Amino acid sequence: MYSPQFQSGAARIAGPAFTVKFVPKDDIIHPKPAGHYSGLRALLQEIAHSFSSQIDQVPKDSVIFISQPRPHINAVFGGLMALRAHKLGTAGVVIDGRLRDLQDHRALGLPVFARAVGTTAGGAVCRPSEVNVPIRFSSEIQEAWIRPGDFIIADLNGVVSLPKELAEPVLDIIPRIVEADRKCADSIEQGRSVEEVFKEFRT
Amino acid sequence: MYSPQFQSGAARIAGPAFTVKFVPKDDIIHPKPAGHYSGLRALLQEIAHSFSSQIDQVPKDSVIFISQPRPHINAVFGGLMALRAHKLGTAGVVIDGRLRDLQDHRALGLPVFARAVGTTAGGAVCRPSEVNVPIRFSSEIQEAWIRPGDFIIADLNGVVSLPKELAEPVLDIIPRIVEADRKCADSIEQGRSVEEVFKEFRT
Amino acid sequence: MYSPQFQSGAARIAGPAFTVKFVPKDDIIHPKPAGHYSGLRALLQEIAHSFSSQIDQVPKDSVIFISQPRPHINAVFGGLMALRAHKLGTAGVVIDGRLRDLQDHRALGLPVFARAVGTTAGGAVCRPSEVNVPIRFSSEIQEAWIRPGDFIIADLNGVVSLPKELAEPVLDIIPRIVEADRKCADSIEQGRSVEEVFKEFRT
Repeated sequence: MYSPQFQSGAARIAGPAFTVKFVPKDDIIHPKPAGHYSGLRALLQEIAHSFSSQIDQVPKDSVIFISQPRPHINAVFGGLMALRAHKLGTAGVVIDGRLRDLQDHRALGLPVFARAVGTTAGGAVCRPSEVNVPIRFSSEIQEAWIRPGDFIIADLNGVVSLPKELAEPVLDIIPRIVEADRKCADSIEQGRSVEEVFKEFRT
Repeated sequence: MYSPQFQSGAARIAGPAFTVKFVPKDDIIHPKPAGHYSGLRALLQEIAHSFSSQIDQVPKDSVIFISQPRPHINAVFGGLMALRAHKLGTAGVVIDGRLRDLQDHRALGLPVFARAVGTTAGGAVCRPSEVNVPIRFSSEIQEAWIRPGDFIIADLNGVVSLPKELAEPVLDIIPRIVEADRKCADSIEQGRSVEEVFKEFRT
Repeated sequence: MYSPQFQSGAARIAGPAFTVKFVPKDDIIHPKPAGHYSGLRALLQEIAHSFSSQIDQVPKDSVIFISQPRPHINAVFGGLMALRAHKLGTAGVVIDGRLRDLQDHRALGLPVFARAVGTTAGGAVCRPSEVNVPIRFSSEIQEAWIRPGDFIIADLNGVVSLPKELAEPVLDIIPRIVEADRKCADSIEQGRSVEEVFKEFRT
């Protein structure tokens, strides 16, 4: 979590994923999006923004999930995109890559999660390809696919993707876990051992 | 340092190490601890906590040192463990791995140091094995062993392990270094060169 | 950005680079600097500071760029160096490596950028070699040379090096980009689409 604060504060987001897939700039396999990205772009355009028509499609209350190809050179999400996403009522933005214009995201109070910050736009090395397609999450330690409509949940501890099929079962289970945790916390607060309270409330 | 604040503030801890060693869940070489971990655990138990009887053994004023096997998937220290450790009077917690429930650690004011945050408990991939055994610190750049009773010292700059045999010699040397540094700082403040003040106070 | 705050706040620096190159301690190819580093050093000296005569040469308003050899064990810039650099009027410090004494840099309000924090001085593993020589920036993802006098620009989003030959052309281009961005932001604020405003203000 980089915004509203760096891994701090009470901000939490949850919503269906709107996915945006970036590919290396010289990638000729993945389709080019409609919009003004299909023609020759001026240098100014190239360095100054990352995607445009894609951001205008963001549905209200969705979480924008942006996948940047590795290596993560430059940034794929900046202040103007944040302003538009905020205007359209996004719940927040999760970037498997770099963001920039951090001060702008914070001024908007927009929750933004990313791997790192960056200084320049990604136009020189990558370009947006498809929106609302399944995206493979490129983690070092776990493999996952994020599909449009999967639920993205995030706070200062990190980001979770919940497959849409599991949303109802999870909503059924969570209250019981939360209640058991609350009872455990109350008992530990009173000085009881974890072993004891886990036996009482978690079996 | 993730708590009380992220690499900020005056929090400092020092104390003898109480070590907790996690091993991969499918590890059949390392012993399983006594307690309710020896039986078959319900899914709820598995996902909702990481260790229990281990935390109840933490001595007052000790620093809990937790070693998580690589890769560091999920988190090995959360809010309920923090609450219990705080009740037992721990000086702080150092995790060679991931923590979660960061908001809980901060609400307690508990100093916690880790490599990263995480969202879910580690039960699906690792389990606590032994406590108070020497632990090999798995750094990319340096090798070290942390033994029970070695001194762990940590602040916003990071974590140091001081072998217990060296504690007395170090306590003998440190005041002289601190005093030399103070004299250097005073002189630099007055506009003198570093080269000059180092020659005067450090030779 | 670690100081004045961790990737937060309005601090921005820009200035010509004053470069300091560290080499591994056992490196016998690179020249040793003049000053008190040429003799045998006492243990106290070795552990308590990293460089001295180098820091005294820092010109007012310059940005100190320090290159630490990999792996980045320990720290190459601490509180006394920060105090001297601040006294000499440096604009800020960029470290391709680790810093320590973070609390001191923040107390001075000195802008300091680095890869990570560290606890002990680097004297045991590396030493300063040359100042004001071109330095190869050891990034995982991009290659670059920082030459003395190249402009270093940095804020909460990261660090940029601008070759001195490009300073004038960039100063010519930037106001137009800033103005176009301001117009875009105003229009997006009024509810217009990014695609539309980019077509209007960026072509």
